[in-house]
Parts: sequence; structure tokens; C-alpha cells
Amino acid sequence: MKMALKLGVIGTGAIGQDHIRRCSKTLVGSEVVAVTDINLEQAAKVVRELDIGAEVYADGHALIAAPDVEAVLVCSWGPSHEEYVLAAIAAGKPVFCEKPLAVTAEGCRHIVEAEIASGRRLVQVGFMRPYDQGYRALKSVIDSGRIGEPLMLHCAHRNPRVGENYKTDMAITDTLIHELNVLRWLLNDDYVSVQVVFPRKTSKALAHMKDPQIVMLETARGTRIDVEVFVNCQYGYDIQCEVVGESGIAKLPEPSQVQLRSEAKLSNAILMDWKDRFIAAYDVELQDFIDGVNAGTITDLLPGMAMPLRWPPMPVCRRRTVERSC
Amino acid sequence: MKMALKLGVIGTGAIGQDHIRRCSKTLVGSEVVAVTDINLEQAAKVVRELDIGAEVYADGHALIAAPDVEAVLVCSWGPSHEEYVLAAIAAGKPVFCEKPLAVTAEGCRHIVEAEIASGRRLVQVGFMRPYDQGYRALKSVIDSGRIGEPLMLHCAHRNPRVGENYKTDMAITDTLIHELNVLRWLLNDDYVSVQVVFPRKTSKALAHMKDPQIVMLETARGTRIDVEVFVNCQYGYDIQCEVVGESGIAKLPEPSQVQLRSEAKLSNAILMDWKDRFIAAYDVELQDFIDGVNAGTITDLLPGMAMPLRWPPMPVCRRRTVERSC
Amino acid sequence: MKMALKLGVIGTGAIGQDHIRRCSKTLVGSEVVAVTDINLEQAAKVVRELDIGAEVYADGHALIAAPDVEAVLVCSWGPSHEEYVLAAIAAGKPVFCEKPLAVTAEGCRHIVEAEIASGRRLVQVGFMRPYDQGYRALKSVIDSGRIGEPLMLHCAHRNPRVGENYKTDMAITDTLIHELNVLRWLLNDDYVSVQVVFPRKTSKALAHMKDPQIVMLETARGTRIDVEVFVNCQYGYDIQCEVVGESGIAKLPEPSQVQLRSEAKLSNAILMDWKDRFIAAYDVELQDFIDGVNAGTITDLLPGMAMPLRWPPMPVCRRRTVERSC
Amino acid sequence: MKMALKLGVIGTGAIGQDHIRRCSKTLVGSEVVAVTDINLEQAAKVVRELDIGAEVYADGHALIAAPDVEAVLVCSWGPSHEEYVLAAIAAGKPVFCEKPLAVTAEGCRHIVEAEIASGRRLVQVGFMRPYDQGYRALKSVIDSGRIGEPLMLHCAHRNPRVGENYKTDMAITDTLIHELNVLRWLLNDDYVSVQVVFPRKTSKALAHMKDPQIVMLETARGTRIDVEVFVNCQYGYDIQCEVVGESGIAKLPEPSQVQLRSEAKLSNAILMDWKDRFIAAYDVELQDFIDGVNAGTITDLLPGMAMPLRWPPMPVCRRRTVERSC
Repeated sequence: MKMALKLGVIGTGAIGQDHIRRCSKTLVGSEVVAVTDINLEQAAKVVRELDIGAEVYADGHALIAAPDVEAVLVCSWGPSHEEYVLAAIAAGKPVFCEKPLAVTAEGCRHIVEAEIASGRRLVQVGFMRPYDQGYRALKSVIDSGRIGEPLMLHCAHRNPRVGENYKTDMAITDTLIHELNVLRWLLNDDYVSVQVVFPRKTSKALAHMKDPQIVMLETARGTRIDVEVFVNCQYGYDIQCEVVGESGIAKLPEPSQVQLRSEAKLSNAILMDWKDRFIAAYDVELQDFIDGVNAGTITDLLPGMAMPLRWPPMPVCRRRTVERSC
Repeated sequence: MKMALKLGVIGTGAIGQDHIRRCSKTLVGSEVVAVTDINLEQAAKVVRELDIGAEVYADGHALIAAPDVEAVLVCSWGPSHEEYVLAAIAAGKPVFCEKPLAVTAEGCRHIVEAEIASGRRLVQVGFMRPYDQGYRALKSVIDSGRIGEPLMLHCAHRNPRVGENYKTDMAITDTLIHELNVLRWLLNDDYVSVQVVFPRKTSKALAHMKDPQIVMLETARGTRIDVEVFVNCQYGYDIQCEVVGESGIAKLPEPSQVQLRSEAKLSNAILMDWKDRFIAAYDVELQDFIDGVNAGTITDLLPGMAMPLRWPPMPVCRRRTVERSC
Repeated sequence: MKMALKLGVIGTGAIGQDHIRRCSKTLVGSEVVAVTDINLEQAAKVVRELDIGAEVYADGHALIAAPDVEAVLVCSWGPSHEEYVLAAIAAGKPVFCEKPLAVTAEGCRHIVEAEIASGRRLVQVGFMRPYDQGYRALKSVIDSGRIGEPLMLHCAHRNPRVGENYKTDMAITDTLIHELNVLRWLLNDDYVSVQVVFPRKTSKALAHMKDPQIVMLETARGTRIDVEVFVNCQYGYDIQCEVVGESGIAKLPEPSQVQLRSEAKLSNAILMDWKDRFIAAYDVELQDFIDGVNAGTITDLLPGMAMPLRWPPMPVCRRRTVERSC
Repeated sequence: MKMALKLGVIGTGAIGQDHIRRCSKTLVGSEVVAVTDINLEQAAKVVRELDIGAEVYADGHALIAAPDVEAVLVCSWGPSHEEYVLAAIAAGKPVFCEKPLAVTAEGCRHIVEAEIASGRRLVQVGFMRPYDQGYRALKSVIDSGRIGEPLMLHCAHRNPRVGENYKTDMAITDTLIHELNVLRWLLNDDYVSVQVVFPRKTSKALAHMKDPQIVMLETARGTRIDVEVFVNCQYGYDIQCEVVGESGIAKLPEPSQVQLRSEAKLSNAILMDWKDRFIAAYDVELQDFIDGVNAGTITDLLPGMAMPLRWPPMPVCRRRTVERSC
């Protein structure tokens, strides 16, 4: 009989709820036994509505300490991440932390040092793009040598629009961060310099922010990456990545869509909502965490800076069930 | 605690093994407790290699009769399907039957009549295309009214090549059968006439068979469908479906691929192996059967002719776990 | 010094005016010295507005007889074509006749017989598609052997809408006629059978006509062609042609368009007006006639049925000036 | 009767021969009456082979001085351009000069000053891209306001490979120069800063040169342009231009090609030879010069820096014949 990994989830906002549903109903090998939130009523409501019978804890520390919680998902407010991740490491419990790992470089370093001190890989940061089929197919082509050594990457990260809370530097910390994550994995290389350029500002952006931005990165091997970050582009949520190699060019697939001929246009829909773009990748990402814990090892696709770049083998996409004894 | 639906699998050839792996390791809410095959050693080997601890039964009837088998998958040789499906109906056990349901129209009718007599929906036939995301997206567009009423469909079903066992009439019974299945569902309509035309034969086909063929179907509402069936097309496994409506045209998405610029070509790979084309759809199809049984109802997307065309609501793509009491 | 071929144009309606402008201002090696029309004032107005100083003749016969007219363009009403083409043949003057050559099969045969009796190629019928770069590129691919022998063609001829004068049989005589012309040239083959099928009628067509229609043609070599003729398709003027060969498929290029990302769509414009689709081909077609006459030979891409299928070499696309002595 | 503009051509190498053929045989309103070359035998051979009956002059100055030469085409070695263009201006004769206008900035300024002093527009520089249908379509979309104000341009200029004579700085003076020309016209804006970045060098480039290069331009209005210049990309001659506006993105059309399905690929050919890419644009460019001279005015699409940016109206693409009295 299959036994599931018992999870505790800290934070029951949008992404927290989504992960609770995912780990309870969709994925193999897990169940959610504990939840908490800054708003306890909200946490209780989520448990009720999803009908999962998990216990509601007073706070993250109580949840981490609960004996039946075998692993922790941190989905709370960014500034609280560091504290909970450190607590999970201290408790020797594997922890999946939504981005950001911490809100300061120092905070991240504390976590990396704590994990190293623990002697085990315990932390996985919530970046989903390396689990996306399109990026994996792109990496396969690069790794196959069919386009030769990568020399340049032309990328774009576009959102239709952002709200008032979005500040200029969030183009880096909230938006570009996904490229920082996935491109390092894609190229198996690390960054050595960065330059940000501000083109003419779009009239569609709010007064307080600069948009678009162009970020130019240089890697250790000399590959040059340009990323257009444009979060008020109006027309869609659009992620582009083109890898220019010595003998050819490979381009990230566009999301598969019905091709329409109508109203004087040959068209394919472009997604408007970022949540639809990598929807399948979230499942694979969380399944990889569950399987990793169940198998006694987890692999972090964004290893801490202090650790050598030992990339894990590509996780298998297919879901696996793992036998565990109670 | 989650309890799984206990499945018995008759036939441990390629597709049988694949379903055993799927229902044991990948999907939610099932486990395989019983298997059998015309070759019992082969069945035992599969159980051993997949490490699933299922019991090997002497034959399909013994397996169907086993008390812990709650539902049956029929994956044996086509001519044996009718017998096992009827036995499962007689035992009151839900049964998923790989195509064909039976090798004669009479055999199919017997099954339909037996199912009607049982008073419950018990039979699901193994057609995966209606579970494919591309066909679902196409159906969404049609159902949205964006292209108006469908008037014509232009389809193609192409394989790189077929072996010596493939005879001319298998273009209909083995190949076109998938279009017969999915187009009826897509259009929510039924066929009233059919015409087969034989173009000039390709020099790449073996002497004994006619290839390609063009099949022209007419539906009850007057929609005309042409399907090119070309099983020695050399270049790839390629499934095309274009729906011409009163005000626009919708086309089945091509499988998502990395776009390459290399060697004087802008290209996207075309799959060569049919098994890769609908790989995700098989998971959804079996999960739908499991969920349907667990929920106390199954929906067959190819209802028997004698039954009114009551199309089920589109099954949800996401996997669900179902609580069952022992 | 360059001397131009002196042309007389019968009919100064839309297409006539267009050819007068083309032969006077755009092409090399011709000038229009004579025009006529059923409406003489209209003819005079065209001469005045284009500022070409051509003489206006009382009727087509007077124009054909005029000593300085070296070749004739027939652009008048369809039923008058036969009479004028026969008169030009009788006068020994090369004649370019807009489609139809005649409105009856008998009329066409009279013309073919008269041309044969004259001992010279004198007649070119106004079909422009074989002069289109896209069809030429498609023919190059077929002729290169890269897709093997053609086995099937899937074609579509779609117009956004047609007016009240358009009757059901014009789908053949006015619309399909272009496919009849170009596909014979493309395949270097002739038709042996034809079948027309009427799908469910679109609600967008006027009451008196059947639309769409599917025409299935068989050629002497057994190639099967299906052509969807749909003249109220709403969304655009759209010409499709896909050639399925023994080892690959070649598709007529879509007209080149700017690719747009806007309003949640990745789109390319589809033309709405048929006049824009083959605009460059009209120039090449008329230049080929002028060059052919100037070189003392013309080649008809739709030879009369009574004549052997001796296809001319592909006319050179580039324009040439030809020296002629008066 | 049509009278043609009498042209003298200096330089009968590849591009010179091509222009002689073009102006003698293809275009309307011109004839070549005089040629010269550093190699007079070669000049005579060209005249003989093209059968144009032009006179061979001893050098460019004699040709410019010839009374029947009405306009001059300078197609000789780059370093000689300045001298001949100045001579033509001094003679009051319109001159079409292949790029470069001069090999130094000072040389260009001398020409601009001489032209201004002459009081007439006499010089057109040989840049063909603004005459290309694809760039014109792109400009139409921008000018229509459909994508809003341009904020960024992502461009690429790729050649399969270059020979030993190609030095690193020719990426700017010989290759990027076309983007410098066409993008200024496209945006109706001028450059204010430029930055060149050298990515990791491709192993396919010869030892003495850096390849690829990324050039980042900033315009007066703040639009940012990145151009990848990669002249040993192996796979094709590939020109990309994507304009990111405030509300949408417009992309230069790829050259129209037959779409192929063969050998497990869905592919469109990419051109390998730059001469095929803008072949039609050369005709339109020269026709525009001829028409401009015949109409008593020429418009230069790359106006000298000292002159105000008064962009000419888009030249009409269609060819026109112009009546001229001797």
C-alpha cells in the first residue's frame, strides 16, 4: 500500500492554496497534514474547502515542530522565508521555499551555510521553469551539440501590465529572477557581469516606474545574454528565449495553440495570464520535491553561491510513486 | 488515507505493460493487483520487473472472477476482447477495453446490449484522442462559436511506414478508426455515409496493399470530412485536422517543438513514432477511467450505436484523488 | 533605340484599364496605340486620364483591322471573346484573351481549330497563376524530385463573399477555373474525371447558391486532387495548395506579411481582396505575352485540348527588352 | 515615343555589370550609353556580351564629361568613389554611388558640402533595403500606430561565412552599415550613441577577426536598438528585425518559401546567398533613381549629416515611364 509524504504548508494565499490542492489531489506520494497562515481563519477555510482534514497550526514554528510533518512548504510573505527555512533546516526537515529564498543576499548566505552545516541537502527553491517541457526541449537541443557552443542569448520577459505595488527594481528581483534561474541551468554556466539599460519609457507604465528595461549579462564562458524585461507590454504574457550557437539557433517553443483563420488574420492566441504559461511545470516541480524527499535526496536547481556548480541530472518528468514505511 | 482502485489487467504485451506501469506508478487512485497473459511467464516477468506484487491468474476469466479485482483492463489480442468484456459485464465490474471493442459489428452489438441490460455504464473503449490537449483546444474553439457551424473537415493520418502484417483494410479498422472516434466527439454529430477513393499508389508501399487512401465521410448534419490515410508517407507520424466553419477555420495544433535555424533551414521536428504523439493523452484517458469508476460512473466517449448520443461533459484534465472506503 | 510592340485593347473596364496602364507605364517593350469599348466615351476617358494618346476605334473589328495594331488584348464581356479572338486569328495578329476563352466548349474548339489552321501560335489565355512566384517555387520543388511523385493535392479557393450575380455553377467556371489551369501546369498531367460534392450550405451565402463545394479531380496518372471552393468564407481571400508526394509534402507559400504580436494574438494578415493576391503575377504574365510576340513566338499555358500537351519551358520571370525593327 | 535617360557606368565588376543589365534590359526609362573600368578590356567585354552598344571611355572623368551622359552610376572600387562623385557634382550630373559614399567621414562631408553648394539634390547612395517590400510593410505597420511608439528594436544580420579579406571593423563599415541606413529610415530618428560588445568568439571565424559582435544603438528619442552581427553563422544569410512598440510587436517578414514536410522535419528554406535576399529591391532602387532624375528631382534616403532630416515620401514601388524631350 502506498504511503504518502506528510507535508506542512506555511502560508495559504494564492500560491499556498494552489500547492495544497496540488499535493493533496493531483500529485502522487504526498498529503497535506498541517497548514498555517498569518490569517488563521483563512487557513481553516482552505482546509475546509479542499476537504483535506489537515490540522491548522498557530504559526510556522509550531507547524515545523509538529511530529507528523515530514517536510515543509514555505509559501508565506517573502520577508518571512528566511526564518522558516532556517527553522526547517534546524529541525532536519526538507523544505521547499517559494521564491525569494530570502530578501537579502546575507539572508541567502545564512541559509546556504546552515544547509552545508547540516550535512544534507534540505532546501529546494521554488523555480518552475527548469521543469517546463519547452525549456527542457531547448536544453536537449543545446546539449546535443546541434547548434554548437552557445554564444548569445536573446530573451524577453513580457507581462501585459503590472499594478501600483510593482517598483522599478522588481523588474530584477521579481521578474528577471526567473531568467537568472533558468538560463544558468540552461547554459550550465554562471554570470560574471550585468548591465541594465533603460530605453525610452512606455507611456503605458505608471509614473513611478521605469519600463521597459534591457538587462545584459555576461557569463563566465563569455556568452552574452540580453533580456528585454517589459511588464506593461499590453499584448500578452510572453516569454522568449533564443540561443544563438556557433552553427545554428534554437528557440524556445511558443505555447501550443489552435491556429485560426478568421477576420482577415491567421492567428494563434497569446496567453494573457502568467499562471497559464507554466501550469504543468508547477506539478512537475512539486512532484520532483516529493520524490526527492521520498527517495532521501533533493536536488536544488539553484544551488547556493557558496556551493560548487554540481548540476543534478535532469529530473525525470514522469511521476513516480515511492514506497515508504511508516 | 487514500485507498486505490484495485485493477486486473488481461494481456501483458506492449500496451498492457504500459498501462500496468501507468496505473501503478504514475496515476492517482489505482493499483494493479492482478495480471494474466496468454504467456504466463511473460505476465510473471512483468510483475517482477515493475515490482508491483500483483497476483498472476491462469486466464482472463479467473482474473475477472477474483474478489479483490474491482475493475478490469482488457489489453489482450483483439479477437479475445468480446469474450472478456462480456465476462466483466456479467460480473458487474467496470471494464476498460483497448480497441477494438470486438472484431465484428455483431460482437460490438452484443456488448452494447449486455451493457444496456446491466442497467449501468460499465464499458470504456480505449480511444485516447479526445483526451489530447490539442483536440480539446480545437473542440473549445468550435464550441465557442468563433468559427461558426462546421461545414467541412480536412484531415490527414500519416505514418512513416507499416510492416508486412498491415493489410489494405487496416487503413480503416486500425488507422482511420481514431478519426472515426475523435471526429464524432469533436463535431457532436454522427456519420451517415462514407466513400473511399484510391489515389495513385505510392511506390514505397509493399505490393499487397493500397496506400494512400482518401476517405470521405458525410455526417447527419451534412458536414463533409475528408481524411487522407497514408501509412507509408516516409517523413513522419503526422496528424492533421482542420475544421472549416462558416466564418473561420481552426486547425489542430502541431506538437510543440524547438524551432531551429540550421543548415539553410528554419525547421521544427516532426515526430516519427506514434507513441510519442499522444503520450500525455494516455495518462489522462486512464485517469478518467479510474476516476470514473471511483466516482461510481464512467463515461464512454464512443457510445454504442444503439444508445442515444448523450455526450458526457468534457472530463477534467487534472488528476483527482478519490477517497474510497474499503 | 527601343521600339515597342503596338497593342490594341478591346474593353476598357476594370481589367482592361489595368492592362492599358500596365502595358503603357510599367512593362518593357510595349505601347497601347488603340482602344475600344462598348461605351466609347468610357474608352476615350481612359485614354485621356492615362495620357497615352491611343486612338479610340468604333469597335473591336475596326481595332483589329487597324494597320498599326500589332497585337490585341481582349478584355471585353465574356460572350464577345470568341468573336474577337477569331477575328485576330484571321488577321494573323497575336491575341491575349482574358478568361474565358469562350463561353462554350464548342466556341473554344473553334478557336483552337482556327489557330491550328493558321499554322502559328497566336492565342494566349489570361491565366496568371503559373506566373506567380509561389506556384513557381512549388513547381520547382515538385520537379526537383524532393517529395517524390505527387499522389494527392489538397487545395482551397476561398473568397470572403460574392454578390448576387454569382450563381452556383460559377464556382466551377469562374473560380475553380484557376485551379484547373494551374494544377495541370503544376503536375504536367491532365484530368480524366471530376466529382462535385455539396457539403452543408453556409448560412452566409445568398439563397440562390450552393456554397461551399468540394471538387474532386482525378488525373491521367491517378493523382487525386480535392479543391474546396468556398466563396463566402468571410475571413479572407485565401488560396491553399498542398502537394502530397511519395516522400514528402510541399505547400504553396502564404503571402509574405509582417508578423504581429498584439491584443493577445500572434498574427499575420490575410488578404481580403483577390486583386492583391497575384498582383505581381499579372505583370509577369503580360510581359511574357509581349516578349513572346516580340520574339516571334508565344506560349500558351492552357493549350487547347486538341493539341498535344507540349508544355513550354518555364518563362523567365525577369523582364526583357526586345529590339524590333519597324 | 519613349526616350530613355542616358547613363554612364563607372566600374564593370559584379555590381556594375548587374546595374548595366538592369538599366538596359529590365527597367523602364533608361539606357546605358557609356561605360569604363580600370580594366578597359573587361569594360569592352561587358558591352559586347550584353549587346548594348555603349561607348567605352578611357576613365571615369572622360565618361562624366561625355556630352550624351545624362547621369552617372559609380560602381568602382570604394576609395575612388569620392573623386568621381565630386566630378559628377561639378559637372552638374546626377550620380548614383554604390556604398560607401567615401571611405572617410571627411570625404563624405566634402561631397555633402559640394552638393549643397550646387543648390540641387544630385547624389543618391546605393542602399537597397528601404526599397525592400518587407521593410516597407514593416514601416507601414509602425507608421499606422498599431504597435504604438517604438521603444526597442532587436535585429540580426547574419552571413554564413566571410573570407580572409573581411576584418573585424568591416562588421560595422560593410555589414552593420545596412542597418544604420534602414533603421534610421524605419524609425524616422537618428542615432546619438553606440556601444559594441564582443561575445565569446565563434570557433568558425578566422583567427584575425572577432565574430560575433553585438552593437547597441540609442536614438534621439531614446529608442534602444540591439543588432547581432554574426558573419560566420554557418546556417544562412538571415536578416531579422523586430520592433517592440508600446502596445505590440512587429517583425520583418521572412522571405516567402515553400513549406516542406520531409525527413522528420517541417521546414522552410533559409537563403544562403545575400544576393538573393534583396534582389527585387535593387530593381526598385535603381528605378527610383532613374525616375527621380527623369522627374528632375532625386531623393536620398541617407541624407548627409549636415542636412536637416527631411525624409522623402516613400517612393512608389511600381515602375513608371517618364516622357522626356531630348
